[in-house]
Amino acid sequence: MEKSLDEYRRAKKLEYIDVIGVDCHIGSQITELSPFLDALERLKELIHLLREEDIDIQYLDLGGGLGITYDEESPPHPSEYAEAIIGKAKDINCTFIFEPGRVIIGNAGILVSEVLYTKGTDDKNFVIVDAGMNDLIRPSLYGSYHHIQPVIQKEREVFSADVVGPICETGDFLAKNRVVPGFERGDLLAVMSAGAYGFTMSSNYNSRPRVAEVLVKDNKYYVIRKRETYEDIARGEDIPEFLQE
Amino acid sequence: MEKSLDEYRRAKKLEYIDVIGVDCHIGSQITELSPFLDALERLKELIHLLREEDIDIQYLDLGGGLGITYDEESPPHPSEYAEAIIGKAKDINCTFIFEPGRVIIGNAGILVSEVLYTKGTDDKNFVIVDAGMNDLIRPSLYGSYHHIQPVIQKEREVFSADVVGPICETGDFLAKNRVVPGFERGDLLAVMSAGAYGFTMSSNYNSRPRVAEVLVKDNKYYVIRKRETYEDIARGEDIPEFLQE
Repeated sequence: MEKSLDEYRRAKKLEYIDVIGVDCHIGSQITELSPFLDALERLKELIHLLREEDIDIQYLDLGGGLGITYDEESPPHPSEYAEAIIGKAKDINCTFIFEPGRVIIGNAGILVSEVLYTKGTDDKNFVIVDAGMNDLIRPSLYGSYHHIQPVIQKEREVFSADVVGPICETGDFLAKNRVVPGFERGDLLAVMSAGAYGFTMSSNYNSRPRVAEVLVKDNKYYVIRKRETYEDIARGEDIPEFLQE
Repeated sequence: MEKSLDEYRRAKKLEYIDVIGVDCHIGSQITELSPFLDALERLKELIHLLREEDIDIQYLDLGGGLGITYDEESPPHPSEYAEAIIGKAKDINCTFIFEPGRVIIGNAGILVSEVLYTKGTDDKNFVIVDAGMNDLIRPSLYGSYHHIQPVIQKEREVFSADVVGPICETGDFLAKNRVVPGFERGDLLAVMSAGAYGFTMSSNYNSRPRVAEVLVKDNKYYVIRKRETYEDIARGEDIPEFLQE
């Protein structure tokens, strides 16, 4: 608190800065209300102290961080979040700003992939699909859970398998030791909750063009980003003359 | 071995397949010779058994995997690797294929970044640079060590710091708890050994255009891939008409 006050005092003296707000970032994928309410309590106190020093705070940005259901999480609904904030917001007299991202888009997006092969070894089954860690790095990077289901529902036996991509490293997986429906070559599967931190973190690793993005509304679909081509991957590259001889 | 033989027997019967080689992938960033020699011994045995069944193996692809020095590793020099393989290769009568990647390019590339800010908190110092995990994900993804040094050498006090990027998450670091020279705002620093698994794994996360790639030869430099622009990031995107109203 004392550090924040010091910084605000310093900023107030700067000729080209108008001090008008307080912002916070307390984390991401938070599945309870209490951290948000704790943060709000502290910011209220900060705003109170700032106003006592004639620093007129008009905006309070609570940031994002509200979690979503990937697996078994049961985060508060945005309306519960709103209600809880409103309950504590009455005497603050600020315009509130929010930065929800994941909670809007996370479960609005899926990654659709095709099963290329299935194989069994002595210890493990593998479902090898045509999407890889370059398309969705969350499982590999954060150990994140993404639910996987068939695009076409039918009666299937389940089995335990790793769902992996075609990239040449052990980190290339979408699910590990997962009980999945008995996928077969050619099946389409949906990797759920891929709308946030999915495409935006995707790369051209292994010279893989990035996937197309498709918006679905009612019974229509719209390609909102074209599938990349090899020409896209090489765009901007230039071989110096001395190497072309 | 028995499984491999079965697969070769199966492949031999396929009308449109000529069976002519053996390939292997035993891992990556290997810093000793013995795993390669062990693999070669086994492959020799496999090739021997295959030839006994009239499957004429003419190519042996030993793959890649030879490690490089990031920190304290002391991998064999490629010439030692070659000598050891040659020593065991005499009676194989195959054309050898190798796939060295990291050992050629890993230490040929550096990531140059500028210090944006330095800051100290009660527990930690931070050097905030303009390169992030989207440019070089190895520290965040694998916990990899990359040496960091100033581009311009001069007398500096050292201190312990995290070297971090400008992306909005705790995974955005290039080095943690690292003793580094006393970097100051505006300093250029070199993140070493960034030639392999660097640019190829980079993404546009946080809407960050990917860096330019520059080849240096003697005292000349050549831009071999242009710095991306925001136009590049949005290329291929299309907003459906019903959203444009």
